[in-house]
Amino acid sequence: MRALRFAGDRLAVEDIAVPARESEALVRVTLSGICNTDLEIVRGYAGFEGTIGHEFVGVVEQAADRPELAGRRVVGEINAGCGQCTRCLSGDPRHCPARTVLGIVGRDGAHAEYLSLPSRNLLEVPDSVTDRQAVFVEPLAAALGIAEQVDIVAGTSVAVIGDGKLGLLCAMAMAGLSNAVTVVGKHRAKLATLSGYGNIDAKLLEGLEASMHGRFDVVIEASGSESGFATALQLVRPRGKLVLKSTFHGTPTWPASRVVVDEITIVGSRCGRFAPALDLLATGAVKVDSLISEEMPLAKGVEAMDRAAAKGVLKIILDPHAN
Amino acid sequence: MRALRFAGDRLAVEDIAVPARESEALVRVTLSGICNTDLEIVRGYAGFEGTIGHEFVGVVEQAADRPELAGRRVVGEINAGCGQCTRCLSGDPRHCPARTVLGIVGRDGAHAEYLSLPSRNLLEVPDSVTDRQAVFVEPLAAALGIAEQVDIVAGTSVAVIGDGKLGLLCAMAMAGLSNAVTVVGKHRAKLATLSGYGNIDAKLLEGLEASMHGRFDVVIEASGSESGFATALQLVRPRGKLVLKSTFHGTPTWPASRVVVDEITIVGSRCGRFAPALDLLATGAVKVDSLISEEMPLAKGVEAMDRAAAKGVLKIILDPHAN
Repeated sequence: MRALRFAGDRLAVEDIAVPARESEALVRVTLSGICNTDLEIVRGYAGFEGTIGHEFVGVVEQAADRPELAGRRVVGEINAGCGQCTRCLSGDPRHCPARTVLGIVGRDGAHAEYLSLPSRNLLEVPDSVTDRQAVFVEPLAAALGIAEQVDIVAGTSVAVIGDGKLGLLCAMAMAGLSNAVTVVGKHRAKLATLSGYGNIDAKLLEGLEASMHGRFDVVIEASGSESGFATALQLVRPRGKLVLKSTFHGTPTWPASRVVVDEITIVGSRCGRFAPALDLLATGAVKVDSLISEEMPLAKGVEAMDRAAAKGVLKIILDPHAN
Repeated sequence: MRALRFAGDRLAVEDIAVPARESEALVRVTLSGICNTDLEIVRGYAGFEGTIGHEFVGVVEQAADRPELAGRRVVGEINAGCGQCTRCLSGDPRHCPARTVLGIVGRDGAHAEYLSLPSRNLLEVPDSVTDRQAVFVEPLAAALGIAEQVDIVAGTSVAVIGDGKLGLLCAMAMAGLSNAVTVVGKHRAKLATLSGYGNIDAKLLEGLEASMHGRFDVVIEASGSESGFATALQLVRPRGKLVLKSTFHGTPTWPASRVVVDEITIVGSRCGRFAPALDLLATGAVKVDSLISEEMPLAKGVEAMDRAAAKGVLKIILDPHAN
């Protein structure tokens, strides 16, 4: 089968064997999505080698321990825990120290014709969610994961830094919880994808008033840049919370005294649960179609990665079976 | 009166007028304590000029709006809010944007024969607390403030990084809440001051086992150093909390990806409420006498500051009226 693989200094579409793990489910990938983490991996982040990709929708080919799944359309939680440690036994395989992560840590990923995951990781996709929408379940779950860690209610003032696909998804997810969501970005066209959300205030970074400094209860850094982190620190109020949502390679510097004096909390946030994200897509509360820039065949995977890294581009979707 | 004053490039004991603010209480300072923040101010942190010092015990000379306080032995909350903003009206003058802070922001401090504070900032000291102990109310309140921001219960594993006076006070304060407190320091003699606390495990940094990495629910950084922050990040568990307790001048670098991937929360923490700290001293639950290195006359204030900055020295207490 075709798979988009990274090997230290080389990214290529290669022909490899279909995965065959008897204890897991085999999924025929229908579509996969390119995430910024894929781009970071190719730059050397996390030292991963193998098939990249972790956002997908597919159809179950076989699942020995859950045969009723065969033929079902599914998405899949990307963390596979050991199943035996205290973290796994408490229902949190996302932080199992021995976990593998689809296309990120020790496990071949989703930019391929087929993938393998434990059947317990799979969730069926409701008919009302299209394949293209279902590709967004993983990043939308990650955006919703913020609310697992930080209280966000109707009156919570939330700022999102960054108008990339993650920032826009965070804004859409938060708009279902708070009536006071502001997104700060650099790109008029990207901010325009939020025009359907009446309760999101989209602002260009260059027009940001000093009066907004120190005003927000919660600020979500989703730009993955050190300057975005600095802006986030400016906007958060004393005793407010700054959520680090972007995995980026780097060691930013920061004024520790501002964090201490204003008793700011910085919250690292990575993954979230899939079921609530599927619900938001099924009910239409979150509309992701405007976030898709292009659909390309997996055969052009290397080119697609370049395209995903280009200015002004949002989500690139790969079709592993198209030619 | 005598006062220890900093003016940009010069620290000196000077003779200035006794403060006279009719709307505030006048306190005759009995003893004051030198804090690391005093040392940071003299290095240029916060741009403060004036009389330094914010840890004190004294006797009220006069308080027009609370005349019953006259003659009473008191300690004082150091933040004076405007009394009119939303922060102040919600009972949190500690984060009033227009606040002054005793000896730190816009208000002459406690290393002086007399000081002035709003009478509402003053708390009477119970007879069972000595003057020398009462000087520790402010830093002990700051240590206890951690529990205002982070849940700490009997089973919470807590590590404190740093065996300076703030680290030791944090350990003592946390030992009243958790049965699993570990202090990591560099100085055998300083760690020995904790020998009276059966439930505190004191460890030398050099002997720290790798098995302790990623194990602690809560890690308190009280060393005020970048290497201390790095150690704290090593020790905290996935989804654990790292409390930044030390105000230090600097912009540390840090691996943002560890914070995001392991969903760590970093909590800036500065001040706490005085009443619970007074209670812990009154009941003897926290014993601070072993933390005093020396008592010196305020007349030798400049020398005392040098002494406070020397290796192996814990709290230096100043007596403003001794010769």
